[in-house]
Amino acid sequence: MYYIGIDIGGMSIKGGLVDENGVVYAKKSVVTNAQAHYSAIVKDIADLCVSLVEEKGLTTADITAVGMGIPGTINSKTGVITYANNINFEKVPIVKEFRKHIDVPTFIGNDANVAALGEQRFGAGKGYNDVIVVTLGTGIGTGIVVDGKLMEGKMGAGAEGGHIGIKIGGEPCSCGKRGCWEAYASATALIRQTKRAIEKHPDSLMVKFAEEEGKVSGKTAFLAAREDDAAGKAVVNAYIRYVAEGIISHVNLFRPDVVLIGGGISNEGDYLMERIQRRVNRYSYGGHRNPRVLVRKAELKNDAGMLGAVALCL
Amino acid sequence: MYYIGIDIGGMSIKGGLVDENGVVYAKKSVVTNAQAHYSAIVKDIADLCVSLVEEKGLTTADITAVGMGIPGTINSKTGVITYANNINFEKVPIVKEFRKHIDVPTFIGNDANVAALGEQRFGAGKGYNDVIVVTLGTGIGTGIVVDGKLMEGKMGAGAEGGHIGIKIGGEPCSCGKRGCWEAYASATALIRQTKRAIEKHPDSLMVKFAEEEGKVSGKTAFLAAREDDAAGKAVVNAYIRYVAEGIISHVNLFRPDVVLIGGGISNEGDYLMERIQRRVNRYSYGGHRNPRVLVRKAELKNDAGMLGAVALCL
Repeated sequence: MYYIGIDIGGMSIKGGLVDENGVVYAKKSVVTNAQAHYSAIVKDIADLCVSLVEEKGLTTADITAVGMGIPGTINSKTGVITYANNINFEKVPIVKEFRKHIDVPTFIGNDANVAALGEQRFGAGKGYNDVIVVTLGTGIGTGIVVDGKLMEGKMGAGAEGGHIGIKIGGEPCSCGKRGCWEAYASATALIRQTKRAIEKHPDSLMVKFAEEEGKVSGKTAFLAAREDDAAGKAVVNAYIRYVAEGIISHVNLFRPDVVLIGGGISNEGDYLMERIQRRVNRYSYGGHRNPRVLVRKAELKNDAGMLGAVALCL
Repeated sequence: MYYIGIDIGGMSIKGGLVDENGVVYAKKSVVTNAQAHYSAIVKDIADLCVSLVEEKGLTTADITAVGMGIPGTINSKTGVITYANNINFEKVPIVKEFRKHIDVPTFIGNDANVAALGEQRFGAGKGYNDVIVVTLGTGIGTGIVVDGKLMEGKMGAGAEGGHIGIKIGGEPCSCGKRGCWEAYASATALIRQTKRAIEKHPDSLMVKFAEEEGKVSGKTAFLAAREDDAAGKAVVNAYIRYVAEGIISHVNLFRPDVVLIGGGISNEGDYLMERIQRRVNRYSYGGHRNPRVLVRKAELKNDAGMLGAVALCL
């Protein structure tokens, strides 16, 4: 059976023709015409679907269902986008509009949630029913799969794990609150922490690595820490403590099988995962008496949203 | 139809004969023989059931199902208690053991979770599908109902909202971590905060109220704050900020319809609820664009566990 997964982003819309096992037969993308009326954007998506099936020598009659991941607040039950930050979507009945073009069952979800479902079905969470995916990027995105299903909150407004508090009254967050996890454990936060440390320790190896890369990035402190630089290690240790703190809150609430970490920072691999795992083992509620929660790297990268959109249909 | 709800506590075991609408026909309790072998405790529970149905002139053949709330980690799928802190239960197949005495469908759950289900079905959460119950007592208990069902985590080890972090590296918590919500927003924490404030402000009205009651309690600072005492107001305002902080984290993750507050502190009523509501409105993610979350007082008090145990059966 053939499904189409659509990953709508502020810059581009990616689509894939995929089967129920997550095998990808065709993949294409178009630029997001973000300022256009929603009907024009939906038309672009329908055209993308046609072009995907044609590449495989099929027609839209061969499609069993279409899934879409959308960056915003989504009511998956009514098929309406409440609002999307980066695109001109507000109260958009996208499922109804899309089915004017291609009339097959169509499912929608928030992009971070959908990507989590993709990891659970087809990625590093395969075989587990209870999976949390944490994306450490510009912000922190979280997707929460409970008993094989997305936990999205009322009208899709939940699963905003980046905005749980970890330090009351702490760093200001873009959401208007202070002390959110995102304000301490996103890549953006790590870069800020690294810059502050460089100012205090101009002799740190971090300076060298930042000069080589031409900027301070999420890698700078890790590169220095791996070479045993004291200031670099201090930044990384504090950062890992911040990341683990939010993960432990999620573990205590959801007690999943596995927490998957994605986003640019996850490229630090085992160095990062092992250190987080140790803190999760030590500080999660109930210690060894409670079931162990694994910390692993997410696998699907850029395809997570597209594959997760397919998983929405299954 | 008749159901029996059992609320197992470290001190007593409460039972009720209840119908599907939550009408209670009989209510009894026995002392928990906490040090006995589990088979003796289960026998006591079965005897309690017999005594409940006899009071109404029925037999155990009239019981449709039995539900039990248990203080510990519960595997509701296998019917086995992983462990219970206050009772001599470890790896106890309580459902199997109970059905040796009364062979009807029997359901078990963690006591805090079950009490939340009771509030959602029969109490202040009636009519809502997504309900969080927060009990501010010696610790903080949380029960989370998503789409009408308990969210318990793997092997019942989730929904430990008292142990989400709100201040990394902060006050030590009984769980071994620092900065847990429970360490700031439980009644125990409020009493500690009140005592500290009294030491600094020996002229505060809090001193008078503590003397009248013969001790510092969860009420002391509220009594003073209501009479406009500056130090009392400072304690209450800080405490409300702590309570709201943890609630906002829960709102951002679950976006429920309503958060119900129970436990001794909830007797502060509207004074407390309105102030928490204001912070939740202001600081929850997405502000007014996201669905509003109500903050209300829980209703069922001591019957929540027993009625929730019945709700497990429905």
